[in-house]
Amino acid sequence: MSDNQNFVKEITNIEDDFAKWYTDIVIKADLADYTDTKGCIVIKPYGYSIWEKIQEYANEKFKKEGIQNAYFPVLIPESLLNKEKEHVEGFAPEVAWVTIGGQEELEEKLCVRPTSETMFSTMYSKWLTSWRDLPIKLNQWCNVFRWEKETRPFLRSREFLWQEGHTIHETSEEAQALTHRMLDIYGEIIEELLAIPVLKGKKTEKEKFAGAEYTLTVEMLMHDGKALQAGTSHYFGQNFTKPFEIKFQNRQGKEEYAYQTSWGISTRLIGGVIMAHGDNRGLKLPPKLAPIQTVIVPIASHKEGVIEKSTEIYEKLKQKYRVKLDTRDQYSTGYKFNDWEMRGVPVRIELGPRDIEQGKAVLVRRDTGEKVEVSLEQMETKLGELLEQIQENMYQQVLKRTKEKTTIAKNMDEFIKNMEDNQGYVKTMWCGKESCEDKIKELTGAHSRCIPFEQENLGDTCVCCGEKAKHMVIWGRQY
Amino acid sequence: MSDNQNFVKEITNIEDDFAKWYTDIVIKADLADYTDTKGCIVIKPYGYSIWEKIQEYANEKFKKEGIQNAYFPVLIPESLLNKEKEHVEGFAPEVAWVTIGGQEELEEKLCVRPTSETMFSTMYSKWLTSWRDLPIKLNQWCNVFRWEKETRPFLRSREFLWQEGHTIHETSEEAQALTHRMLDIYGEIIEELLAIPVLKGKKTEKEKFAGAEYTLTVEMLMHDGKALQAGTSHYFGQNFTKPFEIKFQNRQGKEEYAYQTSWGISTRLIGGVIMAHGDNRGLKLPPKLAPIQTVIVPIASHKEGVIEKSTEIYEKLKQKYRVKLDTRDQYSTGYKFNDWEMRGVPVRIELGPRDIEQGKAVLVRRDTGEKVEVSLEQMETKLGELLEQIQENMYQQVLKRTKEKTTIAKNMDEFIKNMEDNQGYVKTMWCGKESCEDKIKELTGAHSRCIPFEQENLGDTCVCCGEKAKHMVIWGRQY
Repeated sequence: MSDNQNFVKEITNIEDDFAKWYTDIVIKADLADYTDTKGCIVIKPYGYSIWEKIQEYANEKFKKEGIQNAYFPVLIPESLLNKEKEHVEGFAPEVAWVTIGGQEELEEKLCVRPTSETMFSTMYSKWLTSWRDLPIKLNQWCNVFRWEKETRPFLRSREFLWQEGHTIHETSEEAQALTHRMLDIYGEIIEELLAIPVLKGKKTEKEKFAGAEYTLTVEMLMHDGKALQAGTSHYFGQNFTKPFEIKFQNRQGKEEYAYQTSWGISTRLIGGVIMAHGDNRGLKLPPKLAPIQTVIVPIASHKEGVIEKSTEIYEKLKQKYRVKLDTRDQYSTGYKFNDWEMRGVPVRIELGPRDIEQGKAVLVRRDTGEKVEVSLEQMETKLGELLEQIQENMYQQVLKRTKEKTTIAKNMDEFIKNMEDNQGYVKTMWCGKESCEDKIKELTGAHSRCIPFEQENLGDTCVCCGEKAKHMVIWGRQY
Repeated sequence: MSDNQNFVKEITNIEDDFAKWYTDIVIKADLADYTDTKGCIVIKPYGYSIWEKIQEYANEKFKKEGIQNAYFPVLIPESLLNKEKEHVEGFAPEVAWVTIGGQEELEEKLCVRPTSETMFSTMYSKWLTSWRDLPIKLNQWCNVFRWEKETRPFLRSREFLWQEGHTIHETSEEAQALTHRMLDIYGEIIEELLAIPVLKGKKTEKEKFAGAEYTLTVEMLMHDGKALQAGTSHYFGQNFTKPFEIKFQNRQGKEEYAYQTSWGISTRLIGGVIMAHGDNRGLKLPPKLAPIQTVIVPIASHKEGVIEKSTEIYEKLKQKYRVKLDTRDQYSTGYKFNDWEMRGVPVRIELGPRDIEQGKAVLVRRDTGEKVEVSLEQMETKLGELLEQIQENMYQQVLKRTKEKTTIAKNMDEFIKNMEDNQGYVKTMWCGKESCEDKIKELTGAHSRCIPFEQENLGDTCVCCGEKAKHMVIWGRQY
């Protein structure tokens, strides 16, 4: 899978063609590849290990909330999918159907799960009897399938990997608290691990999940000023528990329907990392997430002692960090520098004969390009500090850009102008009517991202119709 | 999901009806449940955490071999499946087909992967150019689907979870060495973690994987004397690399086809653990594998200080072990004892007011039922020792039974009698002809398990036809 030519493959300029830049990175940084199954990708080891890091980080947080992992079937009978009206209307059009099994036409077709509310609900109805059984908080890491027309690696694949959590509760209050708690956890994962600030809020009625009472969302802003929905948490009330008869005997001995939630994040987050942090040199990975945190590139490695010293440092550092030692002899040093930058490795350690003589090495930051001379004795400590600084700086950089790309619009002229001049988040007041949402979409190409939890008063009237405003909404063009 | 009645649900007697005993345990120990998707189960948290332990253990070993995790599409176009003749003949009859996507009939139907040789092969052919790229050693943890007619939880489900490793190599020798190495790793996982001794060998031509040059297998013998194929490792030679054109420039600059392997273990191993170790009290889990290694059951917990002391011990032990403190007040102590025994928890710690007074607790082994008094100060150390002893003893118990259920047959009368008197492994000499295999199956119900690596000379003639023998084979009825 290596490249035999002695230069790093060209990446399209990020300012010229952002979409092409994106797919260049996906392919050339070895994150994923296209397959013979239309709209489906292979997640290659480098991309998959990013996903494993996200899983590990999330699993730890889930466990603290008393959430347990389980596994439910990938194929769902049509009759189950049909039980909740809004849900089936939302999902049926984009479903893949199994109609033949064991060489015979099936009596009832089975869909490849687009999401598993119906499957979890039918099991919950079987398992639940008493309030003592509640809450039940399950999660599964799995593949899901949606028949998308236009696909892009990680951002919109027909098949993708995700986790879907499904919980049932004794009271509406408890279920709603969990809906909010899971959104907070998604925020923590994205801000702490992915180094991307999030916008939190509630989706409008138009944008909520099919079948939900309401949907909470974490949104992030990409390099090009488009928004990416990064994770959602849904409160269902009794919308599924009634048709699926998820009932229990409450503390008063009466039969009652449970209250339900679901929430998910997916491999789409990898797309978000690429588009939030990447630049013209390629991918840029935050140290906590990076499969390789630092790469040691020996310089003039044919000279006596260089490989030995590099190996010694490698052995020491790998006790504490995720380190790679690049001893490939078919590539030039310059090629290697570019190659690892393109793959987004946060720190490069350069070590040549003169460095060794002077008992030092040069550390190069991927985020700023800055070079730091460090004595070999202090290497272990300094590297740790540097990685922390990079993690923090990368977060701050995206925060800064997000602020710069966030504008306020009081009327539609301003809205349109803001979007044209400085594509990003646009804050406005809104009356709450879907007709205004539709019109804004038509005029600006922007969807409502959310009704932010942190509301600001920007005036009394809707940006679109001029009628009395209900909420401050943040809008953006989207992936 | 708890049980409101104050007694542990009945389990069928293991000697009366082994099959019923098995499904009783699967359901009542909360490992899995049946679903509305025929032939597919839900793996519940207790069962799934066993699978996570296996994954963790295997991933560590895979990593040491330089194997990387990745993810390939779940749906495979029919044309890909058709490229290797034996392979498609083997798998096409038991495949589930997606024929409708996004409400439209597909031009080419897609199968839900029964295994992914074809998908890996098509990507390998795209990625491979030079000998420098080799070996490529990838693995994926995923779901697979086979349209089985008769299903049993974990043992034969339509959908199951597994890992499938796929590698390509420069030389046949290297590929074959890896085929053997992976079998050894499976043996290590099963013997070290699952505490079940394995039989290792090569499958006969009749029993090998569709498309393989040869298949290596690890087999284990269950409580009832039936065999379970626990993991297989296949050497493909160039059977796939030729039709899929997986070519590379070799060191001499000439084009050559690569050599290939694949290997897998699945959630079937959970079924093996149940059937190898379980007894009339229920599941019996080896400590290394057990999601809960020890449960603390406070006795007379309404008495002063009992809950406090139990909690103190729990907090201390959980730093080092996977511990559960059972403070449920709706169940009697006797119920709790039975319940945790049924769930196979290796050690129960009983702690009552008198124990606390005397500064001790009673530890009860699930494997032998033996009770050990331990002073509270020594608890942490003693528990560790006990868990190690249990792990070893459980292995030895299965080894002993396997030996007792292994017999030699020199002729078919002996073979039939052995199988009737003492169902288990039967060792015989064999001529190598499939017709004899078929006849043995017809007369005894046994399949060849394998041609063991450790050959013994039991005579010169085939047990069935009396002609010149080629190998010693081990036979057994199977799951």
